[in-house]
Amino acid sequence: MSGRVTLIGAGPGDPELITVKGLRRLQAADIVFYDALVSLELVAFAHHARRFPVGKRAGSHSVRQEEINRLLIRWARRGLNVVRLKCGDPFVLGRGGEEALALAAAGIPTEVIPGVSAAVAAPALAGIPLTHRGLASACVVVSGHAPSAYAPVLVGLVPGTVTVVVLMGLRTRAEIARLLLERGWPRETPVAVLISASTAAAQQWLGTLESLAWPAAIEGDGPATIVIGAVVSLAMHGSRVRADVSLGGTSA
Amino acid sequence: MSGRVTLIGAGPGDPELITVKGLRRLQAADIVFYDALVSLELVAFAHHARRFPVGKRAGSHSVRQEEINRLLIRWARRGLNVVRLKCGDPFVLGRGGEEALALAAAGIPTEVIPGVSAAVAAPALAGIPLTHRGLASACVVVSGHAPSAYAPVLVGLVPGTVTVVVLMGLRTRAEIARLLLERGWPRETPVAVLISASTAAAQQWLGTLESLAWPAAIEGDGPATIVIGAVVSLAMHGSRVRADVSLGGTSA
Repeated sequence: MSGRVTLIGAGPGDPELITVKGLRRLQAADIVFYDALVSLELVAFAHHARRFPVGKRAGSHSVRQEEINRLLIRWARRGLNVVRLKCGDPFVLGRGGEEALALAAAGIPTEVIPGVSAAVAAPALAGIPLTHRGLASACVVVSGHAPSAYAPVLVGLVPGTVTVVVLMGLRTRAEIARLLLERGWPRETPVAVLISASTAAAQQWLGTLESLAWPAAIEGDGPATIVIGAVVSLAMHGSRVRADVSLGGTSA
Repeated sequence: MSGRVTLIGAGPGDPELITVKGLRRLQAADIVFYDALVSLELVAFAHHARRFPVGKRAGSHSVRQEEINRLLIRWARRGLNVVRLKCGDPFVLGRGGEEALALAAAGIPTEVIPGVSAAVAAPALAGIPLTHRGLASACVVVSGHAPSAYAPVLVGLVPGTVTVVVLMGLRTRAEIARLLLERGWPRETPVAVLISASTAAAQQWLGTLESLAWPAAIEGDGPATIVIGAVVSLAMHGSRVRADVSLGGTSA
């Protein structure tokens, strides 16, 4: 009997922000390989399954990608219903594409269940729409982990036309801000840094591109979503909307 | 007693792609105002609630935005638990920001529950990662409804650095393709047009920027997600991943 793999997006952190379909597939799993940042409360729904963390925490991978691919293939070939539970959405800066390709090459039947990316959820929970009439009609989601990832994209943006969302950019936030300032973005462009959004550890920093460039101390080591653009100003107006997010720190 | 409003992202179409939290809030609603494109199967989960469609279908709004805002405020003031159920995610090209601001201004307690945007789900279900090592480290999500929305964003993009996702762009697809070709994007850049993704009516067209510019007939009048960039080439390799999507039409 041939097994199968389901790649599931766990959502941004709150275990209730997985999809109904994702939760069902998780509950039916024989074996689960989950990102270390996925809520253990969520993983526990796979109560009949064996459960293994396989990374990943901000920048480091406790198990290498190639090894994860091999694990998924090996256990599916033994006939198991394998679930790969990934933070956010598997295909938005999540390397789910590499896993899907490896599985396809190995002939393993694979299903992808999309999830709510932190790139979308973190701003939403902070009362920040990624697009808003008159402020931004588009958004860019970019990885902040290295200049080679973000620079070619950010240099081309016409200042102020678009909301910029940076994942994995807490470490590089000052360089990113300086790059945008050099490209003509206004110093007073509002910025939100949203850490561990949708969880009890959520923290929020509001400032400007200038204060992001000359690094204000931002506490917290959870996954961060940085939002840059005029839409961030709406977070201040919509304070009643922010149900789950505490305000930590402030801008210069 | 004061009521409240919950803005919920319904997901891309499949009723099981709502979040667990979104479904719970929907089931607890007294009254639901839903986008016409939201699955009726999903709306039916609010079985104790009064349920009203309030738009919107590709470009037209059966109820004007201002009127929707007024309805939400009026029924919350009567003490009801009001749910506003919107396609995809409320804050990604969904005008949820306007509703949230109007509610905040009226002093109505409001909660936002993010959803899976078609911008993310449609490519995922077609086996297309929005980012992929070596192909794209960022994605841009843009509204295709008018040149004023997409042109300022698209003209600045360095060709090939980023995956472009266009929502509401079925009508303007040829203009968008020509704009990118003029800016130096290669003619053979792969393109996917994904219509009614995650539903039984799903259709998929695969082609190139050149064939999108000289309009191949694309059938279907459901909501469309257009994906432009090298990552689309992975859809062809990952055919076993495409569980729900039939292949309709082909490129020139």
